[in-house]
Amino acid sequence: MSYVHTLQGDILMCNKCRSSHSQAPHSDADVDTKRRHLLLGGSAISAAAALTPSFISFSSMAQTNAAPNMAARDSQAWAASGPNSAFKSIMIPRRAVGPKDVSLEILYAGICHSDIHTVHGDWGAPQYPCVPGHEIVGRVVAVGSQVTRFKVGDIGGVGCMVNSCGECANCLADREQNCLNGTTFTYGSEDKISGGYTFGGYSKQVVVREHFVVNVPTSMDISRVAPIMCAGITTFSPMQHWSLEKNQHIGVVGIGGLGHMAVKLAIARGAKVTALTTSRNKFEAIRAMGAEPVLWTDNNALRGLTASMDMMISTIPYPFSMQPLLNLMKLDATFVNVGQLGTIDGLNGMMMGFNRHSIAGSMIGGMKETQEVVNYCAQHNVLPDVEIIKPSEIDEAWRRVQDKDIQFRFVIDMQQA
Amino acid sequence: MSYVHTLQGDILMCNKCRSSHSQAPHSDADVDTKRRHLLLGGSAISAAAALTPSFISFSSMAQTNAAPNMAARDSQAWAASGPNSAFKSIMIPRRAVGPKDVSLEILYAGICHSDIHTVHGDWGAPQYPCVPGHEIVGRVVAVGSQVTRFKVGDIGGVGCMVNSCGECANCLADREQNCLNGTTFTYGSEDKISGGYTFGGYSKQVVVREHFVVNVPTSMDISRVAPIMCAGITTFSPMQHWSLEKNQHIGVVGIGGLGHMAVKLAIARGAKVTALTTSRNKFEAIRAMGAEPVLWTDNNALRGLTASMDMMISTIPYPFSMQPLLNLMKLDATFVNVGQLGTIDGLNGMMMGFNRHSIAGSMIGGMKETQEVVNYCAQHNVLPDVEIIKPSEIDEAWRRVQDKDIQFRFVIDMQQA
Repeated sequence: MSYVHTLQGDILMCNKCRSSHSQAPHSDADVDTKRRHLLLGGSAISAAAALTPSFISFSSMAQTNAAPNMAARDSQAWAASGPNSAFKSIMIPRRAVGPKDVSLEILYAGICHSDIHTVHGDWGAPQYPCVPGHEIVGRVVAVGSQVTRFKVGDIGGVGCMVNSCGECANCLADREQNCLNGTTFTYGSEDKISGGYTFGGYSKQVVVREHFVVNVPTSMDISRVAPIMCAGITTFSPMQHWSLEKNQHIGVVGIGGLGHMAVKLAIARGAKVTALTTSRNKFEAIRAMGAEPVLWTDNNALRGLTASMDMMISTIPYPFSMQPLLNLMKLDATFVNVGQLGTIDGLNGMMMGFNRHSIAGSMIGGMKETQEVVNYCAQHNVLPDVEIIKPSEIDEAWRRVQDKDIQFRFVIDMQQA
Repeated sequence: MSYVHTLQGDILMCNKCRSSHSQAPHSDADVDTKRRHLLLGGSAISAAAALTPSFISFSSMAQTNAAPNMAARDSQAWAASGPNSAFKSIMIPRRAVGPKDVSLEILYAGICHSDIHTVHGDWGAPQYPCVPGHEIVGRVVAVGSQVTRFKVGDIGGVGCMVNSCGECANCLADREQNCLNGTTFTYGSEDKISGGYTFGGYSKQVVVREHFVVNVPTSMDISRVAPIMCAGITTFSPMQHWSLEKNQHIGVVGIGGLGHMAVKLAIARGAKVTALTTSRNKFEAIRAMGAEPVLWTDNNALRGLTASMDMMISTIPYPFSMQPLLNLMKLDATFVNVGQLGTIDGLNGMMMGFNRHSIAGSMIGGMKETQEVVNYCAQHNVLPDVEIIKPSEIDEAWRRVQDKDIQFRFVIDMQQA
């Protein structure tokens, strides 16, 4: 029995259950069960670990006899140990590469407001240490024997999920995010292959089932691709589902990471875009994207937009009064909320009924659609505006996200660790 | 200057402005203006009034030279003089029949919960005396010179609106309820033809523009047709708009006047219907309609229905917790609220997003669709279950509606006055 060491030595994690806990360590029988599960999950362990230069291994488990880059290994990661703790570098276990797995050296990871919500416990108590990050782009360093879409050296993207059953009606309908047997999300989710829970992209390496890795065309500036994996698909999917057409008028509410992707994706479709923001200092950048910025607090401007929009997408990640914005829509239009995952209050039944308005929720998209948005962005040269930071700057970046002091997305360059 | 008399003599209404008021009566110049407006509106006044047996005229205005049944006249009506007052019989003015008008002797008028909300002031202070009623079936007693779809003796239906501009984009798109120049609703609405405000179907006669009168096939049991004009169109329209298909599963919430029409209309489409009610004493009648009744308070039953429905229609006319019902829907489904026109609180952004659920409002339908639902009901033999009452029983009926002591709709038989 051993604990995974951390670089700072002050976040301890059991490498048997892959959780931090203060109880007695698991018995060897437990370890055997986990290992059997690992093997049944398809891991091929055949040779000693060949470490990439940035990798430091402390784990003692299952590394013997692993082929180069195929073995289970420990990866450097940046973790929060509590809701308000600073990020610390720790080592986390990554499983051996199974027949259907792709191993990625993570190059870039986007910072999404969801990461902050999760660590802060806004959506329920997370497991700590928490390694966030579900906007991941990396270089393929190993592939399993049954992998067909990737070879070593390719660029792959990983979004908000890393596994699902693949057999239920929803999985078969390309809705893996709604797997009836439980989607494995990229971080903080029960890891049905390796046990414990999942660790996200604020790390240097990850092993993911091929089905959950999208191909990133090499024509793209890969330093800017990561946010497409969450911010991109989250805003692209409703435009597809609710059929935003050329020359239609869309309102995008909240012009941060998701919102500015919504603006760019809607402009690429030929839509007229009004960008509702609280930040006048984003006006110039919004105009440069081809959209019309409007201060959301400008009641006169809002009045002038009444009943003008065919669709709205709101990315605001906290509760706010939605009804005044619904009133900007034409008859029959839908207000798609992709950001506010708490309680929604204060809708006006009379106004919604009179205008046959809908308010809908939407969350990411399936893997097929995630590949589509990456291809779409490559084809239409749609890329997020990013500010590249080092892993050591995550705390400062989070503070700035919360202070709305970012245009528009932070991306962590893992090679600057 | 004169006041319109009432049968009881205790509700006074000025026949110049067609409102009750305590201010000084209008000047003769005002009267002339009103009369000019009336004439410009197309009224044909050519002979002395020929009164139907149930009609007692007290109005002195514009009745000379009117053809039989074409003249302006006063009609007996049942009015509330305040939010909690009992109904009293009064006389109200009905305009002369213009070239595009149809005059109906009202035979039946349904009692809708909206009538109660309006009189109680739940949706804003109404004008009193208020004559409610927007589920009207009557016999045509006169038609204007340009009327093409009706002749004397036909049966016509009038729903929630009686006029609109006919020229704006919404009117041209068969959405007269959304007229950009202001729809005239059947009661309590500014009357742009006659001045004052409109009086509804709790009365013995009404004059309505032909466009707002639907043809009622003589094959129908006309004592049961009136509720189709509001309860029918209100529940039919969302099934059309959101395309409820054969064999799909719909949940109907609240099995009163609207709800039981939703059940019958959905059964007629070949849908599987779950009827969510708080009244176990409605189970037998619900089963007789072909639907499965479920007590809305039965948490076990609700759990068993999780993620099972393709669509829901809620007719509940007061605030309630909608989210537990949204959870009964499949991915991508829409919960259509047609009853709760107040504030909607407590939706769960996370659940709505995860399931891509929508909540929508819907309100009546355009005239084209209202004719469609009447034709559809005639074709599929869909008729509401009604309890016929006399005008003198309106107060008691209202009490019973509020006590949920009605299966499923009261209809006032005006010939029993």
